[in-house]
Amino acid sequence: MKIAIDAMGGDNAPEEIVKGVELARDAFPDMTFQLFGPSDRLTPLVRNADRITVMHAASVIAMEDEPVRAVRSKKDSSIVLAATAVKNGEADAFFSAGNTGAVLAAGLFIIGRVKGIDRPALTTTLPVVTGDASGSFTMLDVGANADYKLSNLEQFAILGNFYGQTVMGIKQPRIGLLNNGTEADKGDKVHREAYQQLSESTQLNFIGNVESRELLNGAADVVVTDGFTGNATLKAIEGTALSMMSLIRAKIMGSTSAKVGYVLSRKAFHQVGQVMDYSKHGGAVLLGLKGAVIKTHGSSKAETVRNTMSQIHQIVESGLIQQTIDYFEHERAEKAADDQTEK
Amino acid sequence: MKIAIDAMGGDNAPEEIVKGVELARDAFPDMTFQLFGPSDRLTPLVRNADRITVMHAASVIAMEDEPVRAVRSKKDSSIVLAATAVKNGEADAFFSAGNTGAVLAAGLFIIGRVKGIDRPALTTTLPVVTGDASGSFTMLDVGANADYKLSNLEQFAILGNFYGQTVMGIKQPRIGLLNNGTEADKGDKVHREAYQQLSESTQLNFIGNVESRELLNGAADVVVTDGFTGNATLKAIEGTALSMMSLIRAKIMGSTSAKVGYVLSRKAFHQVGQVMDYSKHGGAVLLGLKGAVIKTHGSSKAETVRNTMSQIHQIVESGLIQQTIDYFEHERAEKAADDQTEK
Repeated sequence: MKIAIDAMGGDNAPEEIVKGVELARDAFPDMTFQLFGPSDRLTPLVRNADRITVMHAASVIAMEDEPVRAVRSKKDSSIVLAATAVKNGEADAFFSAGNTGAVLAAGLFIIGRVKGIDRPALTTTLPVVTGDASGSFTMLDVGANADYKLSNLEQFAILGNFYGQTVMGIKQPRIGLLNNGTEADKGDKVHREAYQQLSESTQLNFIGNVESRELLNGAADVVVTDGFTGNATLKAIEGTALSMMSLIRAKIMGSTSAKVGYVLSRKAFHQVGQVMDYSKHGGAVLLGLKGAVIKTHGSSKAETVRNTMSQIHQIVESGLIQQTIDYFEHERAEKAADDQTEK
Repeated sequence: MKIAIDAMGGDNAPEEIVKGVELARDAFPDMTFQLFGPSDRLTPLVRNADRITVMHAASVIAMEDEPVRAVRSKKDSSIVLAATAVKNGEADAFFSAGNTGAVLAAGLFIIGRVKGIDRPALTTTLPVVTGDASGSFTMLDVGANADYKLSNLEQFAILGNFYGQTVMGIKQPRIGLLNNGTEADKGDKVHREAYQQLSESTQLNFIGNVESRELLNGAADVVVTDGFTGNATLKAIEGTALSMMSLIRAKIMGSTSAKVGYVLSRKAFHQVGQVMDYSKHGGAVLLGLKGAVIKTHGSSKAETVRNTMSQIHQIVESGLIQQTIDYFEHERAEKAADDQTEK
């Protein structure tokens, strides 16, 4: 499988991106990599060119560039060229740690939506920290769209279900709707209607509403939400975990006996940090596009890039994108046509 | 000042409620308390009746009762009678640890909205955990309304500003709008318009958009949000803090050396728990009503009840409610009339 990489995206590009790609190359013998960026900068960084090709891209979309305008004007940028490789079938997936808005825009305008999908969803996987459930859950949309309507939530549920089956490897993922209470009548009009619609689905294992308080306890395998609430929830989880870690460190460092305690329990702390470092669980996937688009944190280092390649390997190998296309463009479209004929 | 108490609300009622009220009575010499509930259950629990009166209420609204229907039908319930005491001017504040929906409904239908306020806001105070900012921040709405529009957000900002000035004691509270990015163009249409409107206010110290990731770092003193997003954010913070604590405990208990470390650092852990136990910071206040309505967690014990009485003391003493009424019913209404005349 071939991966198109924006080698210039993120705070540690291109060094850490290239390093991470070399780690992934060593780990996955069936993967080949196209590194997009200025060749004079990238070529010297590649230690071993086995299965790694530098693809010259003269310009770079910066973190502060206005996304849509940048994607439209910087035709020779690493983001635009890497996305174009996927569009043209020259690569199976597009990876970037760069400007999130520009990655979204490139995904939408260059690779394009699956027919039948109104809006793609930014999809992220987080660890389950407590309880007996499996080790992670997937949430979508976490910020591709600030506005939303009923059809978006229903499509996100189906996209999430496919993701759960293929990438998470769960036969019947438990689909939950993020809401402000578990009862069926909770939430605004759109969420109440979404609850009804998802309840009636024979395709989905819909388990009802879930509250954000229960997500880290593994309340659902796939959490369906609008991009505004999902973004706020994701960032609240992230911020609280970081604040808790730093608070505990500060409190422990403030007393001598506790400091001794810290030295003894540091391994435990390290493990906790590992669990909460959700970048380890991979990047955010833009589901609903005609190609695999994966975005990691701007702060990603080589290890995260490598782990994200493992996730991409799974996405490509599982045939997730083709499955989505088959369902929305054919199966569902045909069913809709049949329903129409029956009427 | 006189406080009307639903003595039957919450998991630990009436015992812990009565106990907490006695603690508050001993702490605040200028407070008197009316305990609403079945007198045969309450009277034996009161150890010292100084400044505590049992007010007989024959029925109780249960946690699982449908709120609006319960408030309309159970006229002799502790919630309805306590709210009625505030409405009739026989008490300055209404306190409950019971059915949140019923407390909201009693506040709305019995005590009533301030003229000029479309929807009241559930307002909660959370600790600032890191950074140099002050010790807490206030967020509203955290769940009184699932649907919202522009005017609600603007009114919440003004209500939050009064709360910050009076109860938090901050002269010019930093007002932030919870959004999915800090730039002015972030969020859906309503949030973009709210940003504009708040920016133009001469009355508010509006500092722009804040992200949920930064709340515990003290990004703003008052965080304005819609009830759906606010509820998800609050519960995500709460759930993550709880999960982190239990994860750390489990990891530390899993290794012998770490267990020794835990014993040594337990005081630090205890402090962390204290900081994150936001019920210590008081109850949720229903702002925008013609009386003070305060709701604590259903799991509240005597200590929380006592701390919430301290918060209520501050709310009543500060004249927050009258200030809100003066502003919305007179000052603002007159300004609107003047503007109308000028046109």
